[in-house]
Amino acid sequence: MTLQEFQKLLIKNKLDAYILTRNNMFLGQDVLEDENKILELTGFSGSAGNLIIFRDKTFLLVDGRYELQASLEVDTSAITVITTPDSIATWIQNNIKDPCTFAYNPWCHSISEVDYWNRSLKRHTFVADEKELLGPRLTGKETNFFEHEIEFAGISMDEKISYLTDFMKQKNLDAFFIPECDCLSWLLNLRSDCLPDTPLIRAFALIDKNGEISLFTNDFRKIEVEAAKYKGLNIGCNFKQTPKQIQNIFKNHRIWVDNLENPITLWKATKNAIEQQGFKQAHLRDGKAMVNFLFWLEKNWHGQDELSIVQKLHQFRQQEKNFFSNSFETIAGFAENGAIVHYKPTPKSNKKLKEGSILLLDSGAQYYEATTDVTRTITIGKPTQEMIDSYTQVLKAHIAVASVYFPVGTPGCALDALARAQLWKYGKDYNHGTGHGVGCFLNVHEGPQSISSRGNAPFAANMVTSIEPGYYKEGHFGIRIENLALSVPETSLSSNKEMLKFSILTLVPLDKSLINKYLLNNQEISWVNQYHEKVYTELAPTLEPSVAKWLKKACSPL
Amino acid sequence: MTLQEFQKLLIKNKLDAYILTRNNMFLGQDVLEDENKILELTGFSGSAGNLIIFRDKTFLLVDGRYELQASLEVDTSAITVITTPDSIATWIQNNIKDPCTFAYNPWCHSISEVDYWNRSLKRHTFVADEKELLGPRLTGKETNFFEHEIEFAGISMDEKISYLTDFMKQKNLDAFFIPECDCLSWLLNLRSDCLPDTPLIRAFALIDKNGEISLFTNDFRKIEVEAAKYKGLNIGCNFKQTPKQIQNIFKNHRIWVDNLENPITLWKATKNAIEQQGFKQAHLRDGKAMVNFLFWLEKNWHGQDELSIVQKLHQFRQQEKNFFSNSFETIAGFAENGAIVHYKPTPKSNKKLKEGSILLLDSGAQYYEATTDVTRTITIGKPTQEMIDSYTQVLKAHIAVASVYFPVGTPGCALDALARAQLWKYGKDYNHGTGHGVGCFLNVHEGPQSISSRGNAPFAANMVTSIEPGYYKEGHFGIRIENLALSVPETSLSSNKEMLKFSILTLVPLDKSLINKYLLNNQEISWVNQYHEKVYTELAPTLEPSVAKWLKKACSPL
Repeated sequence: MTLQEFQKLLIKNKLDAYILTRNNMFLGQDVLEDENKILELTGFSGSAGNLIIFRDKTFLLVDGRYELQASLEVDTSAITVITTPDSIATWIQNNIKDPCTFAYNPWCHSISEVDYWNRSLKRHTFVADEKELLGPRLTGKETNFFEHEIEFAGISMDEKISYLTDFMKQKNLDAFFIPECDCLSWLLNLRSDCLPDTPLIRAFALIDKNGEISLFTNDFRKIEVEAAKYKGLNIGCNFKQTPKQIQNIFKNHRIWVDNLENPITLWKATKNAIEQQGFKQAHLRDGKAMVNFLFWLEKNWHGQDELSIVQKLHQFRQQEKNFFSNSFETIAGFAENGAIVHYKPTPKSNKKLKEGSILLLDSGAQYYEATTDVTRTITIGKPTQEMIDSYTQVLKAHIAVASVYFPVGTPGCALDALARAQLWKYGKDYNHGTGHGVGCFLNVHEGPQSISSRGNAPFAANMVTSIEPGYYKEGHFGIRIENLALSVPETSLSSNKEMLKFSILTLVPLDKSLINKYLLNNQEISWVNQYHEKVYTELAPTLEPSVAKWLKKACSPL
Repeated sequence: MTLQEFQKLLIKNKLDAYILTRNNMFLGQDVLEDENKILELTGFSGSAGNLIIFRDKTFLLVDGRYELQASLEVDTSAITVITTPDSIATWIQNNIKDPCTFAYNPWCHSISEVDYWNRSLKRHTFVADEKELLGPRLTGKETNFFEHEIEFAGISMDEKISYLTDFMKQKNLDAFFIPECDCLSWLLNLRSDCLPDTPLIRAFALIDKNGEISLFTNDFRKIEVEAAKYKGLNIGCNFKQTPKQIQNIFKNHRIWVDNLENPITLWKATKNAIEQQGFKQAHLRDGKAMVNFLFWLEKNWHGQDELSIVQKLHQFRQQEKNFFSNSFETIAGFAENGAIVHYKPTPKSNKKLKEGSILLLDSGAQYYEATTDVTRTITIGKPTQEMIDSYTQVLKAHIAVASVYFPVGTPGCALDALARAQLWKYGKDYNHGTGHGVGCFLNVHEGPQSISSRGNAPFAANMVTSIEPGYYKEGHFGIRIENLALSVPETSLSSNKEMLKFSILTLVPLDKSLINKYLLNNQEISWVNQYHEKVYTELAPTLEPSVAKWLKKACSPL
């Protein structure tokens, strides 16, 4: 459909305006290209943005990252591109003064979001477009589910379901509705190859208090049929993650719908013993692939470019046992490209490696055992003193988090500050979080915990989180040092609080030619030396002798 | 009224239950004793707690601090004391399973709170007790308002009102309703002596878009009369701070009510040049009083007790120019009493000072220029090595915040962690925030900024905030080091971010006999020496020669 055709549909349906997001019914999760209605109507291909379509004008709301791209991709005579950090609601509140009737697809907005519109934008009316004027949001593809074997998952589906039925009992619920694909994949020990880098299944489920599972994959009309059984009973779900349409369906059947945090989020984030073991094994193999790549790169960087090294790294990883896919599109940013935080090399932007700058390389993989995510900043030829000092400052920020002791329950925003304060000293900072939770053969970004200024979820033992401070000098270079870490109990202190520390999972050497030892204190130097000793000890037995020899030198003490 | 009489009223009025808080209509602000209906019905005198009264049983919900006190003060055969961190809503959700009709006084609960009950506790019904069965919540006292002179306030009421009318214009509002007493006191440059330690006026105001002010002090029925003028128009207010009854009144008159942050909160927190000057002057005088006290204490502690030194300190402060009152009840906790965070000495708990322990002294004053709040931990005789090391660790935590550079917009939870991480190293922590905003001749605790794990308001230049990490060894001693600090631009760094640092306002020496120099690094030592040099330089000219001589030694370099 074209934008003009859709605007005629608005008139025909007596609607003033339409609110359109990139979301499908799996709110805010990955969207396949042919599900992206903003792309279809406007040509805008960015990963975030909202469209507000009136009968005679259209606004594309994007954040600062996409200002330029949006203007290049859309027909700006028909569409006004607005760069704003505001939500849809805030933008409407500040810009649309006359009372207006907005339609929206009730499958693509959460209960919380629509309730918020109704509560805070009383001047306007919001109507559910139940006809789905733009067509249904899921293309109804065949999905290939496969079992995530117990040797990797650690806990059976039946046991996980029993956690959930216990939870329902405690909360007086007759059923629990799960729209969160990652929670559902974890609960059912199921995976699929539906999305390119994330093996989650795309489905909804309704689990009753006896543990009976109704799974909805292609035909969501079956939810209506299932709901009819629950008249007068209680169903729980998280309103922030559940499409408004689900609440409408339940209400039509006179079901009580309770807004609750989905407890699976926390169960999933707290890795069991088998998963912890899997993370260690996956990182041994991932470290081996990375070291083989670094060894190769040092000798062969002449003539290579960003895209060719991305391919080469993929080849090294593919050879490893239980490799399933990359865990995200590799970021390889050389020199000034490294300073673009969300950079992905394209044939157009692709830079040749050359003497005297640094390469930022952020990559990871999905193994059946676990998911990896690692960033190394690598010198090509001789770095400048500014690069060395900046790298060392970022390393100090990394160590500040990697070596801290902290009480169980500490929110991520606390840890975030420990990293940044090391850079603030020099007037530096970075415009991204310091760390995110990582799934086990699931999303490479998962909650509830995160190390960021907005991270308020309490840390617990056995969570896997990235630590990835950075520094980006626009037009010059980018630096990021990222390891994954497991939170483990720290028992050496006599304390009346349960304390935690991080155990680093990633096994890849840091580039010593970028470290200015004189900016580090003794504790920081010994952290680097101990980390390198561990990398060498664990990886050396798995490597070819020539590579092991190279690694020994790369891991020698500062 | 007795609890039994009130339960009869419930039956007569066909109510299942009643939700009763300590609040008056100035939600969560200071409550005078004769306004405290929980005290009247149960005898419980704690500063926090909620009562849920059924026809045949009553629950008093208190937090951990008040577990013991509540059990001693109330008739436990009639009232079940529940120690819980839960809100009223969470407690009802988890404990009252049968549908129930709860009444509440709509003057004493915010719009947000009542809306949340209705949204999340669908099983139950909440009805406004418009008759005020327990009697009206404000005793209708005469209030003595006085002007806060422009020489102290810095900005005239007219100018402040013009900020607000600009804000209304921008937000398309016809009027703004202000239930926040501190915001209103600031806006109108008015103060009163209604409350013991806080000079705010107790009133509501409705300000129209032309800046016309309707002030409601004793007779709140006048709000009805005023509201009638706004039929069909828009009034803004903060739903978290506005009594539900106000929304009811506005809705009855078909007024649109918008939920907005009160912008005055931020204007008030950002001190103007005159107020900043006032803070400096007030701290010169407060430092002089404190130093005179410390000089006296060193020579005269034999035979003194917590209550007698509180009185002595008050005498020193009273002698200072523009002293109005204390800013809160002084905390003087000797030895194990110092370990009780919310301790206030009473004739029963009062301890005599004696050789070999430490005194935690937290006090402050209201001067016409500004409000002060300072904690010093003072050795009486010779401290133990454990006290010295713990004090030094708390000092490191203090310096970590006092000396940090941070970008404009940093949330307080970030700064909070910098202090705690210094104690976490040793397995230590403290169960209170690291800092709170401080008003200018107003509340000694004010928002929006705070340095705490929940502090998410962004820091800006010219805010006054306390820095007060501590350590409490139950049954032994308590340590806290508190200074007030002004956030000021840091311009020495070449940065593309606007950076801030803290400039310490408090001028009172730290007890050097409690500092283990060998636990401090060079930067920390020079921070202490520079601070002491400033304290001496600024205070010495104001002191008697013998006191100045004492201060010189107290401030000599480590």
